[in-house]
Amino acid sequence: MTTVTPRSTRVVTLVRRPDGEPRTSDFAVEERPLPSLAEGQLLVRNLYMSVDPSMRGRLESTEKHYTHNFTPGSPLDGRALGVVEESRCASVPPGSYVRHQLGWRERAVLDAADTDGADRIDPRLAPLPTWLGLLGQTGFTAYVGLTRIATLRPGDTVFVSAAAGAVGTAAGQFARLLGADRVVGTAGGPDKCALLVKEFGYDAAADHRAEPVRDALARIAPDGIDVYFDNVGGEQLAAALHALRTGGRVALCGMMSQFGGDRRTEGRRTVDINHLIQAVLKRLTLCGFIVRDHDDLRPEFEHRVAGWLAEGRVTARETVVEGLENAAGALLSLLSGGNVGKMLVRLDD
Amino acid sequence: MTTVTPRSTRVVTLVRRPDGEPRTSDFAVEERPLPSLAEGQLLVRNLYMSVDPSMRGRLESTEKHYTHNFTPGSPLDGRALGVVEESRCASVPPGSYVRHQLGWRERAVLDAADTDGADRIDPRLAPLPTWLGLLGQTGFTAYVGLTRIATLRPGDTVFVSAAAGAVGTAAGQFARLLGADRVVGTAGGPDKCALLVKEFGYDAAADHRAEPVRDALARIAPDGIDVYFDNVGGEQLAAALHALRTGGRVALCGMMSQFGGDRRTEGRRTVDINHLIQAVLKRLTLCGFIVRDHDDLRPEFEHRVAGWLAEGRVTARETVVEGLENAAGALLSLLSGGNVGKMLVRLDD
Repeated sequence: MTTVTPRSTRVVTLVRRPDGEPRTSDFAVEERPLPSLAEGQLLVRNLYMSVDPSMRGRLESTEKHYTHNFTPGSPLDGRALGVVEESRCASVPPGSYVRHQLGWRERAVLDAADTDGADRIDPRLAPLPTWLGLLGQTGFTAYVGLTRIATLRPGDTVFVSAAAGAVGTAAGQFARLLGADRVVGTAGGPDKCALLVKEFGYDAAADHRAEPVRDALARIAPDGIDVYFDNVGGEQLAAALHALRTGGRVALCGMMSQFGGDRRTEGRRTVDINHLIQAVLKRLTLCGFIVRDHDDLRPEFEHRVAGWLAEGRVTARETVVEGLENAAGALLSLLSGGNVGKMLVRLDD
Repeated sequence: MTTVTPRSTRVVTLVRRPDGEPRTSDFAVEERPLPSLAEGQLLVRNLYMSVDPSMRGRLESTEKHYTHNFTPGSPLDGRALGVVEESRCASVPPGSYVRHQLGWRERAVLDAADTDGADRIDPRLAPLPTWLGLLGQTGFTAYVGLTRIATLRPGDTVFVSAAAGAVGTAAGQFARLLGADRVVGTAGGPDKCALLVKEFGYDAAADHRAEPVRDALARIAPDGIDVYFDNVGGEQLAAALHALRTGGRVALCGMMSQFGGDRRTEGRRTVDINHLIQAVLKRLTLCGFIVRDHDDLRPEFEHRVAGWLAEGRVTARETVVEGLENAAGALLSLLSGGNVGKMLVRLDD
């Protein structure tokens, strides 16, 4: 028996590496052939695609990255959630919902058994977008960063930068549920700051565009902080080093500021690495991490967060852009802070 | 019975906080009164005084420090080793050799029972200067940094900056004895680099004044490093972040570069804190430490290092300056890299 699969799919390709800030013209939507299904493979129609800050680094040629860089002329990839249209794997029948790594395209052929391949999810437990957000890599990143990397302790004061982003909205809420005494964050603009306090359980939030973050922290965390969940680096990392108390811990999750992605911070001054003298004076630990090293924590994470969701104790929030042709724009919007919560692209057939 | 103690002692005082780089005229030698001995106290005549890079920060008013800052008009202090001239503590008779915190003066009255007070040493185990160097805080700092902070593992490649300094000469030798596979270091000038390889067991050394440290590391540690023992911060820290392998560890011990103490690096460019993105990509851990938090390790340290000394497996090296009136100059010399190994001032009565 021969499985008949669609002969091609629309994909987003990288036309050229960005010269400075990326533009939509650096990307294109193209038609690409799809392979026939081999034994053990699935044809998946993507429903939601994740747009992540880490994709910015993958556009570059020189930036050493923890996964492969994108290649001009080839499709991008990234986390996605789709429905199985055809299957040559008995345990994943058509109609199954799977998470996988072949986003940035409408359809994908993938191995059901791949470690990075299809990860079947139960759509009755949580809405589909949540599986890419609070219950996906994003929420898991927040969970790992707080529990294993920053070893959050009951009573801690926690500071989160890019707090209105996907990881930030998760980290603030999780920190509270994990026993933090006070949770503060920074975001770009007064609207996001208001949301952080109103919807995401932050005790206080500050607009990093409106004042130096060091001043903001002195105001919203006057007694200092114990944990800093860093999503941006730069000035905010330096400010946190000064605000951290003895024995404080920093989870280094990513550094959006290194790309000057926020147009308003372009031309930012270089922040001195020797602010790290604070780490000596106060015995701080800074630890970089990549969430996929910590998959052993995933069952615990899913169990706890699914429970919090069911009890209405956490809020999942997504910014959803429609259509493959708008996916590149969604990435650029994410890099300039145009999202609250998880940035997703929805595809309709 | 009344104990007759000398009424006064010569001390080094801070005349004014330095305006930029410190000068000898910022210090003075003055005569100051000595208190009478109370019960439990000792009169000690100092024989050797330690001169430490950390004293640089204590000259400032604003620099937050892990101990008190020096005060204009008052004597400096610091680690010293002396002989008890008079005692009102039965367990520490006259003639005993003690280490204590009241350096920068010829004589001191101190409490025998103070935690930071007199620490009796056995001059038969090692020469007096060694008790302030390889067997003192300096060697202990190297030991703690390697074993507890950087968790050195057999087979590691270790990079030490300021490798010809007191901590650096100890760290390189200890790293080898603790199982490092390759030990490389940086120092200022070709003579020091040659010494590192010839006398202190380094596999290779590079002159940080002669080439960018990133280039040097690519040459002397082409396969990367696992541990970086940081004594300087700045460009060398950034270079190490790039050279570190996945899972690498950084012991942050101090940052001489923050003061631009080395005249040749004055006007150095600010090094971007966002080099720390390397910590994310490679899951690095950076940990600041202060040796006095780790006193529980001291018996193990003294036992092992005294053994290595007895077996001739480590070399203790000191740069000794004569006389209290030259102590300030010794500090300035230290800050501009004028020493090899531990910088000490010897006092003769």
